Parts: sequence; structure tokens; C-alpha cells
Amino acid sequence: MVPVDLAQQFRARADAALERWLPAPSTHPERLHTAIRYAVMGGGKRLRPLLAYASALWLGVAPERVDGIAAALEIVHAYSLVHDDLPALDNDELRRGRPTTHVAFDVATAILVGDALQAHAYLILATDDALGVPEQARRALVLDLAAASGSAGMAGGQAMDMEASGQAVDPDRAEAICWLKTGRLLEAAVLMPCRLRSDPGPGWLEAARRFARAYGLAFQLVDDLLDIEMPAAVSGKPQGSDRRNRKTTLAALLGPQAARRRLEALRAEASGALAPWGAQAGFLRWLCETTLRPPDPA
Amino acid sequence: MVPVDLAQQFRARADAALERWLPAPSTHPERLHTAIRYAVMGGGKRLRPLLAYASALWLGVAPERVDGIAAALEIVHAYSLVHDDLPALDNDELRRGRPTTHVAFDVATAILVGDALQAHAYLILATDDALGVPEQARRALVLDLAAASGSAGMAGGQAMDMEASGQAVDPDRAEAICWLKTGRLLEAAVLMPCRLRSDPGPGWLEAARRFARAYGLAFQLVDDLLDIEMPAAVSGKPQGSDRRNRKTTLAALLGPQAARRRLEALRAEASGALAPWGAQAGFLRWLCETTLRPPDPA
Repeated sequence: MVPVDLAQQFRARADAALERWLPAPSTHPERLHTAIRYAVMGGGKRLRPLLAYASALWLGVAPERVDGIAAALEIVHAYSLVHDDLPALDNDELRRGRPTTHVAFDVATAILVGDALQAHAYLILATDDALGVPEQARRALVLDLAAASGSAGMAGGQAMDMEASGQAVDPDRAEAICWLKTGRLLEAAVLMPCRLRSDPGPGWLEAARRFARAYGLAFQLVDDLLDIEMPAAVSGKPQGSDRRNRKTTLAALLGPQAARRRLEALRAEASGALAPWGAQAGFLRWLCETTLRPPDPA
Repeated sequence: MVPVDLAQQFRARADAALERWLPAPSTHPERLHTAIRYAVMGGGKRLRPLLAYASALWLGVAPERVDGIAAALEIVHAYSLVHDDLPALDNDELRRGRPTTHVAFDVATAILVGDALQAHAYLILATDDALGVPEQARRALVLDLAAASGSAGMAGGQAMDMEASGQAVDPDRAEAICWLKTGRLLEAAVLMPCRLRSDPGPGWLEAARRFARAYGLAFQLVDDLLDIEMPAAVSGKPQGSDRRNRKTTLAALLGPQAARRRLEALRAEASGALAPWGAQAGFLRWLCETTLRPPDPA
């Protein structure tokens, strides 16, 4: 199957897994569950599920064992978007071309949607029998997700980002923010399927980490460049939202040219980490190339 | 040891466990970690840890195996208070006689404090080796906590409470809100130590559920009565906060007299569930009697 079709298939798998794992909108309390589905099911690239399925393909793990992980990752990502968009944080009213959750519902509901979603991700990891892992490995999955999203991960990165707002920031700090805020969860998406193998294979975990480290940073660079250069009609969010929020992104700090060079180096590093596996890592490498394309200069 | 001293000892155990499990305030990002400690370490009754230790004592489980559970429960409770106090939700500026987290820091930080705390609770359950459980049981612990705090638990109850605000509510619905919003996590505090026994014993899990069901509702009734009847100087939060937020509490709906009668019945039901264990459940029964005392009528 050509990669682009495989990506489409995995995206559909992720949507089906989310559909299965999220409570029906008719579940009591209805308004909360309707808002939860609005926040999660409203499109999106499903990048974290795609990375998890791609990692599983590389490792020879059957995709049905990854459905729960894919759903949990996307749910944590969705909760973080709902909270980041809130008036007290990024104050974004538009995401993927639709009103953000707190605009479509209200701020209180959006806060509770995020809170409930986070709990739901762990409920999935604790409930999913299709993982087929020894219980020891389930513990590692919970830890991977919690570490990637807590105060030493995503939430910590968002806090650092806020603190840095309107301040002079050096590139090292901006890179650290990138890594925590976005990189750690992308890394978890690549690492978690490794837990499903009793024998993770020679050098697999190390290669996964090396790949994910480069990929995570590179992905945030692409996102920053998009914010600087693309109009809202293309990106689905208001142009210059980061600048409006006085955020000094790594791309803005380096300048577009240097950011593009750094991006190229990170992309090569990510691909290089997978080199020993040749065609076996083909889809993961393709995903990396495809999702790390910088926007055409405006 | 007399119960009141035992309670003091367990409260100190819980504080020590939290101290150990929470990142130091000097951990990067410092402001977030300082706010996290402000939210968790600022006093409080430590009721959920106390219930967990009391349940362990009843079950013959060593308290050191419950430290991680006690910390995780209190951390989830603390996160829920931080988010519930936010301007978009209850808009409370005072808790336990101190400024709430969003007042002492800012709204964005308070949102992230809650988010990071929730992840941290699962990190503890996944990391704690002192639990000494088979890995199968760790899965049950994660599920207990996630189910009690998600959209079919605490967050769901909070959403129902908001929906009901300013509306006519019947007692059944008010009771359902109580149960989800407060009862489920109190139930988890009693049930989680049961997971630490490979043989939970004849009727223990059922008795724990029956006890917790009655206790959880009764506790919210006491809290409602406190809100109606006590001045801020005693309760540590502004009097009539629920009424100001146009919340129809179960106690308000029943009226103080009927609420007191219902409370008495629930307290008897909770005690009755533990009757077969006699002195072995003595501390849990004492905790129930002590914490379910209604305020003296103003």
C-alpha cells in the first residue's frame, strides 16, 4: 500500500477507536459529553495516532493492539488544545476553521472537557484488553503518558511558554519549551508501541528516542513557521496568534531562514535514526518527511 | 492509640507522602511547581488520604503500602479544587482562609496547575513500588481513580452542577450530582486499598462500596449545610458561596431539618455496612462519625 493510503487508513482507524472509546453524546451529563466529542472529533491531523501506528508497523506490532494507545494520545492532545485555547491562555477563538470549544460552549464547560478527557485517557489505558501486554508493560504505558503530559512535560512546557511571554529568550530556552510543550507527547507516541513487545529488539528503544527527539523539535518549528507565514484561511487559526500572544517562538528567534536550516538538520537526524531498519521503517520515515515540510514562503 | 491521635498520625503520613511525591519548588519550571505546592500543601483535612489509611487498617494492609494511593487521591482532589475555584466556575477567591490558587498566582497558572496535578496522580500510581501489588492490581488502581474523576465521576458531577445552576432540580437529581461530584472520589479512597490485597476477603468489596456510597452522599450534605449555615471565619470560605453561584444543593432543596434527618440515616447506613467487622473497622467508623457531624445550627 502506498504511504498516503496507509496514512488515510490509520487516520480512519484512529477515528474509529476514538468513536468507540468516547462516551456517546447521549450519556449523562449530555452537554459535557457533546462538548467532549466536539473537542475530539472535529477533524485534526491525528498526528500522534499516526506516529503510534507507524511506530507499531516499524516494530512489527499489529495495529489493533495500538488502537487504545492512539485514542489515549489523541485525547490528551485534544484536552491540551481545549485548555490552551482558553481566554486566560492563548485566547484563540478559531481552531481547524471552527469555533474553539469555549466559544462553541462556554469557558467552564471547556475547562471540564479538558479535565474529563485527561482522566479518560488513563481509563482507556487501564481498560483496553486489546493491548495484549503483560501487566508490567501497562504500567510503563501509564508512566509514558503521565510523564509526557505533566509538569515535566506538556503542562510544564506551556507554563514555561507563558513565563517567557514578552521576555527576551535565548534559543536554548526556546528549544526546551518546544521540547516539553510538543516534543514529549510526540515522543510518547513513538515510544508507547515499543512497550507492546516483550522483546523491544536491539537498539529499538534508543532509535525511537533519537528519532522522536529530533522529530518533536522539528514539528514545533514547522508549526511556528506556519504561524509566522500562513494566512488563517490555510492554517485554520488566526495568523500571528503567537506574536499577538507575545510568544517568542524558536522559529521567530532564529529567523525564517535559519529556522528552515535547523529544520532540515533535524529532519535528517530523525531519518538517520531509522536508517538501520531500511524499508521496515519506511512508513515512519515517510510520515516524518511529509509532516515536516515547511510552508512555502509567503 | 486513640482515634484522634491515629488520625493525626495518618494526616502527617499523607503530608509526608505528598512532600515526597511532589516535585521540589526549585524544579524547572519553578513558578508552576511553586504554585503546585501552594495548591496541595496549604492545609486541608486530608480526608481522602485518611479514608484510604482507615480502609487499609480495616483490611489489615500496612500503611506504607497506601502512601502512594493517599498522595494520588489528595492530588486529584487538590486539582479539582483549583479548577472549581476558577472565575469561570465557582469564582471563589478564598479557600481554607487563603487566597485561591488563581488569585495567588493567575488564572492561566491555576489551569496548568490542575492539569499537571492530574497527570502527576497517575505518574505516582505507575511509579510507586511500595504498593507491592501484582501488576494486575495496579491496573485496577488506575481504573478506580480515572473512573472516579472523569466524565462519569467528579468532572461529570461538576458539569451537572453547572447545568443545574439556577434551575429547578428534584432531590434525585441533586443526589446524583452530589454522588458524582464528591461521592465517587471518596468511594475510590475506600476501595483502592482493597486492591492491595490479593484476597479481598468475604464481602469486603461489597461492604466498602455500601459504606462509601452512604458516606459520600452524607459528606456532601454536611458540606452543603456548612455553606448554608456557617460564617466564613469558621468554614474558611465565603458563606453562601453555593447560593451566590445559584447552585441548588441537596441540603438547600431538602431544607436544613430534613437534610439533618437524611444525614443521620446515611451515617447509620455507613456504620451498619461495617458492623460485621466490629473493632477491626473501629477507626473507619470513628472517622465516619467524626467527619459527618453537621454544623451547630447558627
